[in-house]
Amino acid sequence: MPYTELDQKAINTIRVLAVDATSKANSGHPGAPMGMAPISHVLFNKFMKFNPKNPKWINRDRFVLSNGHGCMLQYALLHLFGYDLSLDDLKAFRQLGSKTPGHPEAHDTPGIEVTTGPLGQGFANAVGLAMAEAHFAARFNKPGFELFDNYTYCFFGDGCAMEGVASEAASQAGHLQLGKLICIYDDNHISIDGSTDCAFTEDVMMRFEAYGWHTLHVENGDEDLEAMEKAIAEAKKVTNKPTVIKLTTTIGYGSKLAGTGGVHGNPLKPDDAQNVKSKFGFDPTKSFDVPQDVYEQYGQAASAGAAAEAEWNKLFEAYKKEYAAEGADLERRLANLLPEGWEKALPVYKPTDPAIASRKLSETVLTKLYDVIPELIGGSADLTASNLTRAKDATDYQPESTGLGTYAGRYVRYGVREHAMGAIMNGLAAYGGIIPFGGTFLNFVSYAAGAVRLSSVSQVRVIWVATHDSIGLGEDGPTHQPIETLAHFRALPNCMVWRPADGNEVSGCYYVCLTSKHTPSIIALSRQNLPQLEGSTIEKAIKGAYVLEEKPNADITLISTGSEVGIAVDAAKELKEKHNIIARVVSMPCWEVFDAQSKEYRLSVLPDGKPILSVEVLSTLGWERYAHESFGLNRFGASGPYKEVYDKFEFNPEGIAKRALQTIAFWKPVTPLRSPINRAFEQLI
Amino acid sequence: MPYTELDQKAINTIRVLAVDATSKANSGHPGAPMGMAPISHVLFNKFMKFNPKNPKWINRDRFVLSNGHGCMLQYALLHLFGYDLSLDDLKAFRQLGSKTPGHPEAHDTPGIEVTTGPLGQGFANAVGLAMAEAHFAARFNKPGFELFDNYTYCFFGDGCAMEGVASEAASQAGHLQLGKLICIYDDNHISIDGSTDCAFTEDVMMRFEAYGWHTLHVENGDEDLEAMEKAIAEAKKVTNKPTVIKLTTTIGYGSKLAGTGGVHGNPLKPDDAQNVKSKFGFDPTKSFDVPQDVYEQYGQAASAGAAAEAEWNKLFEAYKKEYAAEGADLERRLANLLPEGWEKALPVYKPTDPAIASRKLSETVLTKLYDVIPELIGGSADLTASNLTRAKDATDYQPESTGLGTYAGRYVRYGVREHAMGAIMNGLAAYGGIIPFGGTFLNFVSYAAGAVRLSSVSQVRVIWVATHDSIGLGEDGPTHQPIETLAHFRALPNCMVWRPADGNEVSGCYYVCLTSKHTPSIIALSRQNLPQLEGSTIEKAIKGAYVLEEKPNADITLISTGSEVGIAVDAAKELKEKHNIIARVVSMPCWEVFDAQSKEYRLSVLPDGKPILSVEVLSTLGWERYAHESFGLNRFGASGPYKEVYDKFEFNPEGIAKRALQTIAFWKPVTPLRSPINRAFEQLI
Repeated sequence: MPYTELDQKAINTIRVLAVDATSKANSGHPGAPMGMAPISHVLFNKFMKFNPKNPKWINRDRFVLSNGHGCMLQYALLHLFGYDLSLDDLKAFRQLGSKTPGHPEAHDTPGIEVTTGPLGQGFANAVGLAMAEAHFAARFNKPGFELFDNYTYCFFGDGCAMEGVASEAASQAGHLQLGKLICIYDDNHISIDGSTDCAFTEDVMMRFEAYGWHTLHVENGDEDLEAMEKAIAEAKKVTNKPTVIKLTTTIGYGSKLAGTGGVHGNPLKPDDAQNVKSKFGFDPTKSFDVPQDVYEQYGQAASAGAAAEAEWNKLFEAYKKEYAAEGADLERRLANLLPEGWEKALPVYKPTDPAIASRKLSETVLTKLYDVIPELIGGSADLTASNLTRAKDATDYQPESTGLGTYAGRYVRYGVREHAMGAIMNGLAAYGGIIPFGGTFLNFVSYAAGAVRLSSVSQVRVIWVATHDSIGLGEDGPTHQPIETLAHFRALPNCMVWRPADGNEVSGCYYVCLTSKHTPSIIALSRQNLPQLEGSTIEKAIKGAYVLEEKPNADITLISTGSEVGIAVDAAKELKEKHNIIARVVSMPCWEVFDAQSKEYRLSVLPDGKPILSVEVLSTLGWERYAHESFGLNRFGASGPYKEVYDKFEFNPEGIAKRALQTIAFWKPVTPLRSPINRAFEQLI
Repeated sequence: MPYTELDQKAINTIRVLAVDATSKANSGHPGAPMGMAPISHVLFNKFMKFNPKNPKWINRDRFVLSNGHGCMLQYALLHLFGYDLSLDDLKAFRQLGSKTPGHPEAHDTPGIEVTTGPLGQGFANAVGLAMAEAHFAARFNKPGFELFDNYTYCFFGDGCAMEGVASEAASQAGHLQLGKLICIYDDNHISIDGSTDCAFTEDVMMRFEAYGWHTLHVENGDEDLEAMEKAIAEAKKVTNKPTVIKLTTTIGYGSKLAGTGGVHGNPLKPDDAQNVKSKFGFDPTKSFDVPQDVYEQYGQAASAGAAAEAEWNKLFEAYKKEYAAEGADLERRLANLLPEGWEKALPVYKPTDPAIASRKLSETVLTKLYDVIPELIGGSADLTASNLTRAKDATDYQPESTGLGTYAGRYVRYGVREHAMGAIMNGLAAYGGIIPFGGTFLNFVSYAAGAVRLSSVSQVRVIWVATHDSIGLGEDGPTHQPIETLAHFRALPNCMVWRPADGNEVSGCYYVCLTSKHTPSIIALSRQNLPQLEGSTIEKAIKGAYVLEEKPNADITLISTGSEVGIAVDAAKELKEKHNIIARVVSMPCWEVFDAQSKEYRLSVLPDGKPILSVEVLSTLGWERYAHESFGLNRFGASGPYKEVYDKFEFNPEGIAKRALQTIAFWKPVTPLRSPINRAFEQLI
């Protein structure tokens, strides 16, 4: 069907809405929405399959605006298609408490798939979303039952194209041959510093070809709607490669400043805003003025989407009859419920069991859960044999043509791409019905800090298996020994940092990570062997902290995590034998979970009246929150056999005992000696 | 000259030393050294210009082992060429206190240019080193005085090639046309997870071509020394593009496990080690057995290097006579001294001066220092107009052919490449005679966490101009508002985190950042205007914390940073007027610098006997170290006009006053009430 004036009117409506909203907010980015309105119109009306009345329909096409600063584009589209986003919501763009924040947030706004804005992230999320579709299709589709066939569309700009996280993800997507991933590169030649000539002169399309992508170019992205439609149709024909369409556009199309950086991140001047409206046939004196026939046109696409979902629901009903087991499994996963009784697979340990590295204990959990929780889909950033993330009989997630696995496989070879792994996991989790995990050394989770932050902001369940979690990794030395890493992620809101001390704590930790549906977690695991502790249980560990060794009339509480808990237990023995000092020992695998317990419980673990010494062989930053004194490592480590490195820094029973005695003496004169749990006021949450 | 048996013997000596050292340590990576011994031999003997007796000669060729886990290669080379690295040092590989740690550390080992190991970093450092050479050449070379013409050579493997930071840096290097950068890609097809077929199937050379690089391929990197020599010679001929040479090698060449992952990260089995030695004509019963004629051959190259430096020194002497001003400037920079009296350029403010955003105050400092400190070379990751990092009359650092600047320019357009910017700055600093700075939003310094960490580990002076440092950025919302960022970098050893409160503090902050030769810094700066404070001076600010408002008989100390100091001052007024409570106010622009002051001074700022409340609108993590109670933001922020966001979270005089009253009441019964500066024991440093 040829494009009509109504199509042009709809496109200009999007442009004018972006102008109005940014003007009203006196803040925001009109340029990208004005430039990308045409492609959005074509994509959403001619190709996208979605139901605004049920934004969570599982087989919907996914749309990601990786250049999230252009979110007025997305908000305008959502509004016009009849999502739960009113004109008043658009008027409240970038205002406190609105559903239209400065960058799109998935948990706030219906129809937003992933939280974007930090550049490059959305692109990598889209790779994860496309991986998820391929996985569900391979796992659940049956002859006559094409339950999963959705596409993932992603817009990205020069900023995203420059970011390493997007490069990593593009390389991965090419390797994985994700045919249903179609990305549109807004080639507008402008970034914040001006023309891309000043910093970004590579041949982007050749780079994507090198990654194994199918590439296309639409030269007139401002006006040539037919070419845009043709390109997307071409993209869909290539099924064994992701496609990138280079769309040459004019940023701020219609503005007097079109094609310049001036229109990127600032509202248009009032006269320019009026000029845009006049030029596009809108009344320059009105704002937020949507023509009724545009609503009607967009309403039709929305109705078609609702009908498509209804069809799909029928298909799924039939599927459940024909394939009862698969149907039930899928239904459970879509309802975001874990399999009944899954937790029985978690191993339990006795103190007489042998000492085992916690990374190895984690491997046992992942192996036992592999058959029980089919939505667990994990991998490693090229450290499989070190992270121990692969269940013995796992199948790799690979395109069949590689001969190395299938899309139904559940073990992902992420390559040395930590940042992309983090962002891809966010996409996998956002698809629904998948619990992603990924392994690397704890020190290199920092490479993915940008993605971890967005896991937390967007409230997705993503699990990092972060091994080699301290100077205990030994010979690799300071470049690989984390010091600041736990403090970093403990300071990040809505992120659980776990550092389990033995087998029961590893089991407890996985229990909480898997049942916390809206919180990512980082599990810090040791390279070296750790003893099974007397007094640890899963039930205690899931409280975040607990008394491992209670003693009446104790002189001090030692509080510790992970590999240092066993040493603290030995220090308590040393204190008793050599100094007749009684030390209670508290194990604290997770601060955030402990913080969520009742104050009564917290005070029972860290009671008033005795000094508390924390013991953890990383930065002490923040331990003052739980302890009167902190023994840690506020310097870089050293390369050497790990026991020697521990001794060098006095992380042995003697070193702890010495500091315990100093702590007791120092705090003796203070009355009342209150637990740090007691505070003058509550923190805002 | 054709290659002889002696060349082969030298190559095999390197291989055998790598086998011996990893076997003795029972730890380490023999595979890469065994595979890359031939290219190293060719490069170091036929091309590299260096003087082992003076590893710091400024015009030496730079060598970076980006695949730093293969460092026994580098240690063997340094030893053979006669650097201060003995056979005993090689025998102490990966042992505590040795000069041969598990990954190469620049500040520990003579001849190591940059600290590598975390993948991708070294490659990006090399880009910085090559940029530095081009800059010095453009700035100082004169007809007949080619003072600067060194090459930068970099080895990297598949791991580095997969990392986003290296992709970003490669794109930047292509744009910058760095003809003297020659990188050798160890195409051994193996990473830790096994064959690269499982995750990395892109066309790496095509990708580099897309970046604008010159590409070459040596098919037999195990044996074809002539082809290697020819390729490097070809690379040197292309002067307007960096070159990457794909060198196809066999990892662990000579081992029974050659070409497999088994030889990547584990020492060879004893019988295999003997097999290697026998195969290469070495006595299998001996270890660390270096043939005398190999020492002699390598000694010749070393002598040639010493002669080259002597020549250069003569040239420089003549230069200083002919170009006295340039010569003196260069000499000063090479001596790592700032220009006499530079600090007089730092602006000073009075309380009556207008309120100005600290990012704008930073711009004034950078502009004033631009002419005074020519070694300041900075830029921004595509946020120039937001970070305000560009002095008004700066020239861009660009290849001349772009028409946008010259290599003598000092403003770098980094593009949206935060991680590469961080790693390139490490390279610029490592070259010597340059003080690099780079701008982005504080929140996105996290993208570069891997590089920042290495700034700290390797003790280089790198300055991050980190603007938009809190919810004070307003409308952009939670995706851009840092919460955890200050805690993260405060927990990083040897990293200064500054958050100045007004003009004098900004000046003081730059003073310390510029005079701290071995420490990177992150300067957190506000988007919003801040008042000039009564009581601030440069002299006080450079102590890290100081009493802004001293008051006799105070009931409480308020300690704050950056944009909240002014609000704390207003809160003190509010407390006095409404509650007759006397509050002292302490401003604390930098924790790390304050920690370095005498205990006496620290206790004068934070004395015993009164409760202390910290006020900073980011994570409170770690503030317990200085305050009895902490008012901060342990949740994500919100999108809206910044004053409304501040009010929402009660960061206003009333909100602070309320918590001050709670703090006073809560701590009243405790005696003695000690300053948190008093501790039971000293931390290990």
